[in-house]
Amino acid sequence: MYAEMTLEEFKTCLSAGDDDGTHPVLQTLELLSGKWRPYVIYVLIRTPVCRFGELKRMIPGITNAMLTSTLRDLAALGIVHREQFNEVPPHVEYSLTEKGTALLPIIHEMAKWGEQYLD
Amino acid sequence: MYAEMTLEEFKTCLSAGDDDGTHPVLQTLELLSGKWRPYVIYVLIRTPVCRFGELKRMIPGITNAMLTSTLRDLAALGIVHREQFNEVPPHVEYSLTEKGTALLPIIHEMAKWGEQYLD
Repeated sequence: MYAEMTLEEFKTCLSAGDDDGTHPVLQTLELLSGKWRPYVIYVLIRTPVCRFGELKRMIPGITNAMLTSTLRDLAALGIVHREQFNEVPPHVEYSLTEKGTALLPIIHEMAKWGEQYLD
Repeated sequence: MYAEMTLEEFKTCLSAGDDDGTHPVLQTLELLSGKWRPYVIYVLIRTPVCRFGELKRMIPGITNAMLTSTLRDLAALGIVHREQFNEVPPHVEYSLTEKGTALLPIIHEMAKWGEQYLD
């Protein structure tokens, strides 16, 4: 339904609707909230396959515990795929699922807005 | 620059770039993070002019202190406009600025994604 709407139609639709707290916008916001989730998604769009150490290096200020819990949450939500390689030494690779990759248009709109309105 | 890009070009551009931590995406993410900011913006898109009490009623679980501090932050960022009416009794109305209204395409993409991937 939203996919076929123009921005103006979408706005009208938002204004008209009753909010029962289950609106897809609210659910998506909820899911993207949390200090680190959007950052991890952003890094995995830039670098599609990452080990834990690489992710940590690319996200200044994140601790091991916070990165572990963020990756676990995003995997549980079906946004991040975790693949374990039982080689010697064993290692784990993280990437976005199709559902996670589909967040790109949101990130693109954020980039456009930031470019126009920030600085 | 981002505004003229297709999604595919944007993705390529992200993968190629060096990240100096000042990318507009990161700045926008930072600005939209925080438990309540996106929710307040969402409510003000739906109901363009709101008093404090109306906002509070539409955001389940938010306290007076959290709503006050979120509105203050968003006003400082130029996203929310605060207008005081010195009538009897005096009251204050909140609305989105042009910069805040321009966040609508991000919200629209969130709605599309949520509609396709949630539930």
